[in-house]
Amino acid sequence: MSINGVDTKTLFATIDAVKGQPELAKFQFRASNRWVNGTHNRTTVNGYYGTGQEFTRDADHHYDADHPPVLTGSDQGPTPVEFLLHALAACLTSGLANIAAARGIGLTEVTSTVEGDIDLRGILGLDPTVRNGFDAIRISFAVRGEGTPEQLQGLVEQARARSAVFDMLTNPVRVSVEAKAV
Amino acid sequence: MSINGVDTKTLFATIDAVKGQPELAKFQFRASNRWVNGTHNRTTVNGYYGTGQEFTRDADHHYDADHPPVLTGSDQGPTPVEFLLHALAACLTSGLANIAAARGIGLTEVTSTVEGDIDLRGILGLDPTVRNGFDAIRISFAVRGEGTPEQLQGLVEQARARSAVFDMLTNPVRVSVEAKAV
Repeated sequence: MSINGVDTKTLFATIDAVKGQPELAKFQFRASNRWVNGTHNRTTVNGYYGTGQEFTRDADHHYDADHPPVLTGSDQGPTPVEFLLHALAACLTSGLANIAAARGIGLTEVTSTVEGDIDLRGILGLDPTVRNGFDAIRISFAVRGEGTPEQLQGLVEQARARSAVFDMLTNPVRVSVEAKAV
Repeated sequence: MSINGVDTKTLFATIDAVKGQPELAKFQFRASNRWVNGTHNRTTVNGYYGTGQEFTRDADHHYDADHPPVLTGSDQGPTPVEFLLHALAACLTSGLANIAAARGIGLTEVTSTVEGDIDLRGILGLDPTVRNGFDAIRISFAVRGEGTPEQLQGLVEQARARSAVFDMLTNPVRVSVEAKAV
């Protein structure tokens, strides 16, 4: 049975499989990046590990990032922080569709807008009291579907409660950085 | 004067301008997302605000995100958390190129690989002690350029110290989520 394009039988089977064999839930996602020129660089995404096995997609995904000219870049792609906003909106939306399916609520339309405020005096090193990242992020959803307004808003609330990216922005993550000269 | 494709005159002029007029440093970045089907959704990135004005790029950027089949998706694009890894690698690399230019160090090659470990029992709601996001992220840089090994490794260290995305992963960000039924 499919609701919102989500095969709920697979969804519940996955949950049951992981309940019985927790090591299936251990995933590793990866990306690699190469500097191109100036602030322009390119990331490649493909393989990942999960359910005890390696997965390779049919083709690599490539994403260019850069700074705009006003930030000494050449605008060959969005800024890294815009990709972070994309990650947040996408994570909440994917989760919302799964949650709606699990609850038997058919969706018609889900849109969101996300914005982040940043004071560049942080990354420019001009004021130690200004953080490097976004001071605040706001995301606003509009959901159309079969449920009551309370049910539809409840989908967003549960998506927030179970979002990997929302968690990583609102709670600290251990990030290790290594460097070698080659 | 350009080093590593970074116009250092513009870089230092930007820093001086912001020193004298801090409100120029206030930027807002944005993205919008639309659900497509299942866990597949698409983000659009274009306009942003900064240096007291609105900017619009010549064309919208579009990014598809999805879950892989093993996570009830159809793999129409990377997962949201892979875009987050991309954002981290891109942010550190863009910063590194600027810092190298500011220090007069010519770069030949900068590559990085980043990986994140996630236990899906968090987002599946199976274990309240398991977080939703990555338990740990590791990023490893290889830098080739004119400096000594210590100088090249120092670029990565300073990039980390001034990275917007690194900051947002390792320190909490205020994220507000609103929802309306339409």
